[in-house]
Amino acid sequence: MGTIDAIMPHLFIDHNNEEEYVSLIRSANLPGLIIDDSPSEGCEIVFGAPQSIRRRLDDLPNLRWVQSMWAGVEPLLDPNLRRDYILTNARGVFGGLMSEYIFGYLLMHERKIFQRAEAQKNKVWDKSLTGTLRGKTLSLLGVGSIGSEVAGTAKVFGMKVHGYTRESETSTQVDRYFHGNDLLVFVSGVDYLVSILPNTKETQGIVDANVLNALPPHALFINVGRGAAVDEPALLDALNQGKIAGAVLDVFKQEPLPKEHPFWETKNLILTFHTSAPSLPEDIASVFIENYRLYVEGKPLKYVVDFERGY
Amino acid sequence: MGTIDAIMPHLFIDHNNEEEYVSLIRSANLPGLIIDDSPSEGCEIVFGAPQSIRRRLDDLPNLRWVQSMWAGVEPLLDPNLRRDYILTNARGVFGGLMSEYIFGYLLMHERKIFQRAEAQKNKVWDKSLTGTLRGKTLSLLGVGSIGSEVAGTAKVFGMKVHGYTRESETSTQVDRYFHGNDLLVFVSGVDYLVSILPNTKETQGIVDANVLNALPPHALFINVGRGAAVDEPALLDALNQGKIAGAVLDVFKQEPLPKEHPFWETKNLILTFHTSAPSLPEDIASVFIENYRLYVEGKPLKYVVDFERGY
Repeated sequence: MGTIDAIMPHLFIDHNNEEEYVSLIRSANLPGLIIDDSPSEGCEIVFGAPQSIRRRLDDLPNLRWVQSMWAGVEPLLDPNLRRDYILTNARGVFGGLMSEYIFGYLLMHERKIFQRAEAQKNKVWDKSLTGTLRGKTLSLLGVGSIGSEVAGTAKVFGMKVHGYTRESETSTQVDRYFHGNDLLVFVSGVDYLVSILPNTKETQGIVDANVLNALPPHALFINVGRGAAVDEPALLDALNQGKIAGAVLDVFKQEPLPKEHPFWETKNLILTFHTSAPSLPEDIASVFIENYRLYVEGKPLKYVVDFERGY
Repeated sequence: MGTIDAIMPHLFIDHNNEEEYVSLIRSANLPGLIIDDSPSEGCEIVFGAPQSIRRRLDDLPNLRWVQSMWAGVEPLLDPNLRRDYILTNARGVFGGLMSEYIFGYLLMHERKIFQRAEAQKNKVWDKSLTGTLRGKTLSLLGVGSIGSEVAGTAKVFGMKVHGYTRESETSTQVDRYFHGNDLLVFVSGVDYLVSILPNTKETQGIVDANVLNALPPHALFINVGRGAAVDEPALLDALNQGKIAGAVLDVFKQEPLPKEHPFWETKNLILTFHTSAPSLPEDIASVFIENYRLYVEGKPLKYVVDFERGY
């Protein structure tokens, strides 16, 4: 206990709804923690939104650890910024929410939920058969903790799961992995292609015309990762020409999506508004609390971001 | 092998798309089976639709076993009809399809899929939070093989599962069972109430005004069992008065639902058209094939219906 008493680290919570987080963290009775009202010279931990923390980096000489409240930490990855602290992001809490989003839209598509609603409006007893997820292939672009949870849910619905990753093959729920140059082979066998990729140098524009042309015509594309992974004009083209059955996008190159963007009115394109997996304070506070306990014991933190790799 | 060769049972397939079933069954190379083109005196097995078989019962003196193609066998349960044969229904194949339907509509509700579509139409970047299935209680009226599969899927989404049954507690995926007089206690704790009940004397009108009044106002009711389980005027009243958040009905007292029925235009009521779990020939043929193998070996068949109990 001596070490813990000696540390007494100062935390600043950088969020416009900071009171909720203060209350959640206080109720965890974390050893030695002092929560500051404003960022001070002595502050060594910041827990908050990356965009806001970026602006304060120069005012925190004793910064040792930043816990991001979001999964995406792009604002802190700029090579011109300091990197002399440990950056951890929010991970492990979005898988369930992402699964709900992805399966909500997959089922809406297969089970013709909009078509049946239209039939009801027209008082038509529409007995047409629906599709099913069973036996279909769900292909995940990027398989981290979210992908692994999505894959597990897919297995419950009797689906096959393919995964494309840089090199890792961590999830045992994935039936077959693809890497590197096998991207076009990977996408040619999909029923549903779901991108969960972060925004890094290597993922930018990865869903391009080549990938979209290689998809089978019945394919549905879902993007819950980052908008930068998609070549938007190429996707527009694929949808307008009916090269794929449809797309569901939650993320975009520019957010909010500008009013004049053609996506709003593109055929077979469903938009949501970066709402697939909200950062819920309880979930995010629990990530901080878990990591703080490791921090004061001098153990390695969870969800450390590699500044170079970008995730 | 002697017994099998000696049996040579005659099968009649009673379905207007019989060729598909003949081909599926032939490809299974079942021992000793003779498939008749028309129902004959010597016919001892009928595999088909209950409504149609009902009309033939008197012309089949040697009938020993009826395998229903559907789950519902009401037409054969009439106490005035003969019961001197084994009746088996289609079971064990609908759980996955029912799960897809139920979770499709639960996710549509929680994840505001219609609201987001409306926002897209109006070019509004709608950042409002969605709900989540996690932590919610899914309450199943009736827990057989379908309920058990639905319960398993609910656990993957982090839900609690309650089950109301006559007496059985077969599924280990159900967190808490209720029976008999505990119906109103059971429904008072639901987030989603899902009826998977068959049509029997005991289930008729079980979802009545008392049950609907006991539901919490945020409750969503889904009926994928049989329409007879619902007191339709009481449900209409509950929806019109906002006593519950909504309902999704796939089955009705009268099907197809008459054009003049108020359900077509009731607020917060979503209709589908007995399409939640279609009997797919491959699935249904596999039930027959499995049972035939047991039949020729003189073993007890699966999915035997108790004429008195009704399921």
